[in-house]
Amino acid sequence: MRTIDWVPAEGARPGHIRLVDQTRLPGELRELDIHTVDALVAAIGRLAVRGAPALGVAGALGVALAVQTLPTGEVEPAVARLRAARPTAVNLALGVDTAWAAARAAGPEAALAAALALRDDDIAGCRAMAGRGSALLRRLLPDREKLTVLTICNTGALAAVEHGTALGVIERLHTDGRLDRAVVCETRPLLQGARLTAWELGRMGARYDLIVDSAAASVLAGGGVDAVLVGADRIAENGDTANKIGTFALALAAAHANVPFLVVAPETTVDTGTASGADIHIEDRGADEVRAFHGVPTAPADAPARNPAFDVTPAALITAIVTDRRVVEPGPAARSSSPLRMSLNEEEA
Amino acid sequence: MRTIDWVPAEGARPGHIRLVDQTRLPGELRELDIHTVDALVAAIGRLAVRGAPALGVAGALGVALAVQTLPTGEVEPAVARLRAARPTAVNLALGVDTAWAAARAAGPEAALAAALALRDDDIAGCRAMAGRGSALLRRLLPDREKLTVLTICNTGALAAVEHGTALGVIERLHTDGRLDRAVVCETRPLLQGARLTAWELGRMGARYDLIVDSAAASVLAGGGVDAVLVGADRIAENGDTANKIGTFALALAAAHANVPFLVVAPETTVDTGTASGADIHIEDRGADEVRAFHGVPTAPADAPARNPAFDVTPAALITAIVTDRRVVEPGPAARSSSPLRMSLNEEEA
Repeated sequence: MRTIDWVPAEGARPGHIRLVDQTRLPGELRELDIHTVDALVAAIGRLAVRGAPALGVAGALGVALAVQTLPTGEVEPAVARLRAARPTAVNLALGVDTAWAAARAAGPEAALAAALALRDDDIAGCRAMAGRGSALLRRLLPDREKLTVLTICNTGALAAVEHGTALGVIERLHTDGRLDRAVVCETRPLLQGARLTAWELGRMGARYDLIVDSAAASVLAGGGVDAVLVGADRIAENGDTANKIGTFALALAAAHANVPFLVVAPETTVDTGTASGADIHIEDRGADEVRAFHGVPTAPADAPARNPAFDVTPAALITAIVTDRRVVEPGPAARSSSPLRMSLNEEEA
Repeated sequence: MRTIDWVPAEGARPGHIRLVDQTRLPGELRELDIHTVDALVAAIGRLAVRGAPALGVAGALGVALAVQTLPTGEVEPAVARLRAARPTAVNLALGVDTAWAAARAAGPEAALAAALALRDDDIAGCRAMAGRGSALLRRLLPDREKLTVLTICNTGALAAVEHGTALGVIERLHTDGRLDRAVVCETRPLLQGARLTAWELGRMGARYDLIVDSAAASVLAGGGVDAVLVGADRIAENGDTANKIGTFALALAAAHANVPFLVVAPETTVDTGTASGADIHIEDRGADEVRAFHGVPTAPADAPARNPAFDVTPAALITAIVTDRRVVEPGPAARSSSPLRMSLNEEEA
């Protein structure tokens, strides 16, 4: 199954986008056929498709749809609407820009080809991360035949196309017979761990346990976890990593329990223009997500709340960063250096 | 307002128990008048009254109700039902035993007198903790005119009678004009922070921000919090402290941010018969609380889950333990010593 893909034209029926409606999960697996840019913009807006890599592919395929279905004068405004469907998602804009540049240079077929190349790059990149992450874990934990690994949020196929990043490594462990079980943090406030990661692990037949986020520290201290695997939204030049809120707490608990802490993310996540975590702006998503739990009020209706969507894990707490091109090990001395710039020669690690 | 109290007899109307129905909060403040032991057992069972100190008073007042209202032959079975209403709540059994011993020794009036003494002891003990905790914070943070403090779960009046333990200290800071604001962890899975502590702070007119539990580490690292204040369910002889799941993660984050971490709990919580945290049994409350909230599923219906209700914070991470009788500072060298036994002479600290 792919989270998002292109259904080729067949006879008189033109090609279109097909994507998993993630708002229905975990209750129901339903695929949506998207025939217009407006339908795609609506699907992105209500989070039917989410996750940085998946949004990049959605943006590129959306441009292919636009140039194929719309009169010439309507294409550019439609592309602009698509690009702005989630203003903070840089991958969406990048995907749109890539396919739109191809369309303007070489026409509709080139736009579709660019979008499909982005899709294939994502699949290949996630496979590369899975291989590197799996090999790294074998090297870090040579005596462990089967591993129990802990993760947060959803970094699986649902956030990408066919395989995930951190959850892609876990999937590889599972298919290689090396996964004992996964421990999944539910990931408040939006519960991507409970809703999506638990569903993906169940679907792949992997053993797992769901926990509330605040239980991770004692589960780690209890000694039953071999490694922590997380994704990343942005990695600064010094290795400081912004990811889903709660990641930093996991890194502290992993360090206390002496458990390896791995960040798994595509190379595009590395932002050498950002010197350190102190330069990363953290979005606050407002009080409503905290005052309710899956639509049910949980606090006084007027309760003030802080809702930082991400936190920053200092490089010193990260055992290794695994991308589709390299493995970087910031190590405990990383605080003041720039491991991401210094180690470009680690490409083949 | 008292969470639980005795309404004295008036004319022909016999005395009875009045308690806040905590299942209605934060939506509605409703008091229940309890005239029979069976009604009290039902209220305890559905968590209309909760919190160790409040349950102790409930048990004692329930015995007073039993000996006042029931035919002689029915009293003892009713007392036994009451004692077993929540089998793991040691305070409930202690409260029942205290009042029942008084009843058997000296009759119904003695039972009521013993229950009211327990109520008054709780109020006085919480006042003493508030005073000691407040003074300790002034000593630890002499340069801070107003404090921002972070807490978890509900350790307020709703868990006791009139004032709380950790939240009792925060209330004292507020009434003394020394509280800038409180940061409240929502406290998954049962959300006592979001439902009860937020409500109490709002009611006392204190400024606060609600956060998801996993945001605490980055809020602490951000530098805006002066101290962390938590309660305790059991304190071992060496100072290791069992408390609501998530407490240990707060202690790790507080240590990383160099923020004082205070445990506030009555002396009855100190268990010198337990040598260290390794000897404390941690209850797992089962998967249902993690998979759903108020009947709304948040995960696959068959998702396996671990649900430890408590965790253990090592004494080395605790700046000070504040009880109604003393202040103990385990300090970083606490791991192998027994500060709770060694420092009984700190009674006047």
